[in-house]
Amino acid sequence: MSDLVNTLEGWYVLHDFRAIDWTAWKSLTNQERNRAEDELYSLLAQYQSTEDQKLGSTAFYSIVGQKADFMFMHLRETLEELNELETQFNKSLFAQVTVPTYSYVSIVELGGYMAKPGVDPMQDPEILARLKPILPKAKHVCFYPMDKRREGNDNWYMLSAEERRNFMRAHGMIGRNYAGKIKQIISGSIGLDDWEWGVTLFADDALQFKKIVHEMRFDETSARFGEFGDFYVGNLLDRSKMEAMLKL
Amino acid sequence: MSDLVNTLEGWYVLHDFRAIDWTAWKSLTNQERNRAEDELYSLLAQYQSTEDQKLGSTAFYSIVGQKADFMFMHLRETLEELNELETQFNKSLFAQVTVPTYSYVSIVELGGYMAKPGVDPMQDPEILARLKPILPKAKHVCFYPMDKRREGNDNWYMLSAEERRNFMRAHGMIGRNYAGKIKQIISGSIGLDDWEWGVTLFADDALQFKKIVHEMRFDETSARFGEFGDFYVGNLLDRSKMEAMLKL
Amino acid sequence: MSDLVNTLEGWYVLHDFRAIDWTAWKSLTNQERNRAEDELYSLLAQYQSTEDQKLGSTAFYSIVGQKADFMFMHLRETLEELNELETQFNKSLFAQVTVPTYSYVSIVELGGYMAKPGVDPMQDPEILARLKPILPKAKHVCFYPMDKRREGNDNWYMLSAEERRNFMRAHGMIGRNYAGKIKQIISGSIGLDDWEWGVTLFADDALQFKKIVHEMRFDETSARFGEFGDFYVGNLLDRSKMEAMLKL
Amino acid sequence: MSDLVNTLEGWYVLHDFRAIDWTAWKSLTNQERNRAEDELYSLLAQYQSTEDQKLGSTAFYSIVGQKADFMFMHLRETLEELNELETQFNKSLFAQVTVPTYSYVSIVELGGYMAKPGVDPMQDPEILARLKPILPKAKHVCFYPMDKRREGNDNWYMLSAEERRNFMRAHGMIGRNYAGKIKQIISGSIGLDDWEWGVTLFADDALQFKKIVHEMRFDETSARFGEFGDFYVGNLLDRSKMEAMLKL
Amino acid sequence: MSDLVNTLEGWYVLHDFRAIDWTAWKSLTNQERNRAEDELYSLLAQYQSTEDQKLGSTAFYSIVGQKADFMFMHLRETLEELNELETQFNKSLFAQVTVPTYSYVSIVELGGYMAKPGVDPMQDPEILARLKPILPKAKHVCFYPMDKRREGNDNWYMLSAEERRNFMRAHGMIGRNYAGKIKQIISGSIGLDDWEWGVTLFADDALQFKKIVHEMRFDETSARFGEFGDFYVGNLLDRSKMEAMLKL
Repeated sequence: MSDLVNTLEGWYVLHDFRAIDWTAWKSLTNQERNRAEDELYSLLAQYQSTEDQKLGSTAFYSIVGQKADFMFMHLRETLEELNELETQFNKSLFAQVTVPTYSYVSIVELGGYMAKPGVDPMQDPEILARLKPILPKAKHVCFYPMDKRREGNDNWYMLSAEERRNFMRAHGMIGRNYAGKIKQIISGSIGLDDWEWGVTLFADDALQFKKIVHEMRFDETSARFGEFGDFYVGNLLDRSKMEAMLKL
Repeated sequence: MSDLVNTLEGWYVLHDFRAIDWTAWKSLTNQERNRAEDELYSLLAQYQSTEDQKLGSTAFYSIVGQKADFMFMHLRETLEELNELETQFNKSLFAQVTVPTYSYVSIVELGGYMAKPGVDPMQDPEILARLKPILPKAKHVCFYPMDKRREGNDNWYMLSAEERRNFMRAHGMIGRNYAGKIKQIISGSIGLDDWEWGVTLFADDALQFKKIVHEMRFDETSARFGEFGDFYVGNLLDRSKMEAMLKL
Repeated sequence: MSDLVNTLEGWYVLHDFRAIDWTAWKSLTNQERNRAEDELYSLLAQYQSTEDQKLGSTAFYSIVGQKADFMFMHLRETLEELNELETQFNKSLFAQVTVPTYSYVSIVELGGYMAKPGVDPMQDPEILARLKPILPKAKHVCFYPMDKRREGNDNWYMLSAEERRNFMRAHGMIGRNYAGKIKQIISGSIGLDDWEWGVTLFADDALQFKKIVHEMRFDETSARFGEFGDFYVGNLLDRSKMEAMLKL
Repeated sequence: MSDLVNTLEGWYVLHDFRAIDWTAWKSLTNQERNRAEDELYSLLAQYQSTEDQKLGSTAFYSIVGQKADFMFMHLRETLEELNELETQFNKSLFAQVTVPTYSYVSIVELGGYMAKPGVDPMQDPEILARLKPILPKAKHVCFYPMDKRREGNDNWYMLSAEERRNFMRAHGMIGRNYAGKIKQIISGSIGLDDWEWGVTLFADDALQFKKIVHEMRFDETSARFGEFGDFYVGNLLDRSKMEAMLKL
Repeated sequence: MSDLVNTLEGWYVLHDFRAIDWTAWKSLTNQERNRAEDELYSLLAQYQSTEDQKLGSTAFYSIVGQKADFMFMHLRETLEELNELETQFNKSLFAQVTVPTYSYVSIVELGGYMAKPGVDPMQDPEILARLKPILPKAKHVCFYPMDKRREGNDNWYMLSAEERRNFMRAHGMIGRNYAGKIKQIISGSIGLDDWEWGVTLFADDALQFKKIVHEMRFDETSARFGEFGDFYVGNLLDRSKMEAMLKL
């Protein structure tokens, strides 16, 4: 019960993964490529401006391996804004040389387990900063969706609130050991997309992704109750890195 | 037994999800794009006219993320009419710039659990309005298909009718807390499509989708017996919003 | 044992589902479309002629939703004939505007549970008519493949013959309640395709598909042992309905 | 232990399934089609020559349904030879009108259960003929991959060697009843492809495929421990049958 | 605990599987094909140069069957370098005639089970050589991803560290029997890709892949706790073998 009441939500999130159709990119004329890049960089500038106004935040990362070439992670106040960002990108010339490969819809979420009694959490600037965060510019990103398992004796949703709280407390302990190494955004997606949560990790040392997920897997919360989707890992992009990537 | 007898069915339902092939859309001439939009809007007008005559109902929503760009939810008296709607759309110029991504066939259903003894429910205007509903124009939609689980000790179909009724009563209690916030259409699809039910939720505040599905997941009916397919979430479309989406 | 001995087989079956590539269809010239339709209708006439000679039977239905636009269900004496039907269709001009979406290979089967002792079932005209049936022209069709489950305590193939016979008898009782409403063709596909059986239901009222599959799901045979594949539902086609569907 | 020591391996196997792109085939000129067929038939002649020299064997079958149009089953001494056969086919003009749909890599295997003590099985001509077999020209083929299950109490690999031997002996008994009706090639694929074994059955009466797989499914080895992949069934091809198939 | 502390990581790994689009390859002019091959061979030379400088290592193998035509296995110090290798290849003319089919991101890992107390393993040249290995030029490669199972009573992550150590010791014994026949690279991918580990085996005799994976499957570590992804098997490539493969 109480964990239901105490869950807080902030900005809606769209993870948008795309591959580049390199043959299509190379078949454009120099002029078209220039125009496509100009459009892309003005979109990046627009995302930055939204972030400067604290109306949202956008992270931009390459993805290693064939699952995608890059990912936008957009945070905005409404689902309509996320839809408009998609449509705007889709109409761009650059979008014509990309192929959508995966997306994920969620909303930034704070579990109520650390809520202090008698305090309206939405008045707490620290909590607001976590619900409507400016995404870090860490060198690496890791994204994966996950569920809590509901199988036979390993059914998370049949546990009592107290059992769940105890499990989550132990789980949180591990996370705390990675403070300063990993910044984590948890977004809830029950009722919004195919898994129950999206987890986005940011770190300057990508090895920390392996270490934290590995260590947590031995924790009973993950060991018995965690179901994991596909993992996406990548490197920070910005205009100059994208220029290098696209240069023929 | 009695829950079998008491299930009532109304209009057949086709959820029809499509992505836009933006490169194809942009490659049309202005004249072709005008004609494609004219055809689309006259289809929308035709759907509205069917709804005005109470011969069916159609909802039209964008979809957030890469699963689709928009969805039609058509309710009609017969499967033949649903087939004709598909074929008519497929022949349109606009259809040439879209890609089908998912569809779902079902029939509006009322579980008999709330049927009153001694009353012919099909004579009850309130029940008829639920079996052959005019779909709301809420700002957001959420669709997902689901099954009742049949695994080991968690086998819904091996429960007694009384056990099922008790589970569903508790489940319905949660739903009632969302009255005024969420309008829900349950459509049965056993024998019609790959899951046993389709659930379509309408709300002006999309966060309510997350709240109700999350809260219900802790209810034993969902926790032990619910199996969920993919979730689609979107924003209300109409002619003017579609014009904005398609404008280059 | 005895249920092995008593299983009877008749004609081989090919369910062949196809989508129409509407853009390709529209890009043909009028003359090509006429020729494509002529070829298609002469195939339909040929299938009818085979049926008139009692050398096989073919059903032709549209499919509702995006899984396919139409389905042929071909019954023939040999796998070679089914292969030739495929190849013949594939070489037609109409096939060039279609996309194969699913197919299923099986053989009409009668479980031996109703065999009478001391009678050679293959001499019984009623049984022969069920093994080599002329498919009905019912308004609607429903097809789905299925398995008997082999999991933990719910392992159909570990039951004794008597247990299976008792389960099937109760199962058959439900089916009998739908006599006159539903005509059912069971075809076995162990060793022929990915599931163990194909079930094809024919009815003038599509709602009966939902009612029978729903009612049977509460029967222990289905509840504990049934695993179901995808469901396809559709409407009867003939030359004039196909002309209407293809008319631009 | 002993069953490990006693497993014998012979030729490597590549099952190579392909669909024909009929539109592409029809779009070739007569001259190109002639050249494509000539190339194909000279490949067939080359495979026959390899078989005549006892350096390998190749079976060539059509496939019923949409999973493929034809299948090559190549047996050769090394993986390099299998790779060269693929590449050689891929470079042919005929390959340009085909689409790869499935393939399977394995190695002919004899379980050690029938090994006689004190005999070097590789000196036994009968065993060598089974490890490096000339494939039969039976009218029909059936291929499926399979695993032994490892789930809870149904874990094949946790049984003792004696338990496995007893299970396999009973299993083998059923197979023996089909001697003369079915020729079976078992190929091991642990460490080579996605399942643990490939099973290829050859028969002049395709109904025997259904009968043997059905009967075996009631045997505890299959009932508790068998996991089955997709089934492919088809008809014998040769040059004249292929000419008929390809004729426009 | 201790097994967490003791896990050592070396170079990041990208397995990159690609199919050749033979029709596209054949449609290039002789001149284009020459240029495409020149670019490819200069990439191979560059990978060799990186290896000579001990800044990484690259293996290049064909793949048997339709899963891919060839695979690069790249080891580098950082994820950024792996990303650059992908992008560089994607921009090449040769890449235009290839289709990505699968990739896997991981990091070379040594389990801590053989760590000696009181020794800094990163100062041990033997361990460094295993963490940052020069890949062998064995005739054959085998790659598969795997998980440790977390199901009911077979939950690896709920075992005590001692239990896991005992299981792994027995498992390692089997591996040791293949010393000299198989060289194995274990790379961890928890938090990096969809499975927990990637296993790459190198051998001059491909049959050893089947023997070791088969033998290990009877070991309780695999039998109860191993979950396996797809297996890829192939033959060593170099410039002259690639020239032969690509020659028309």
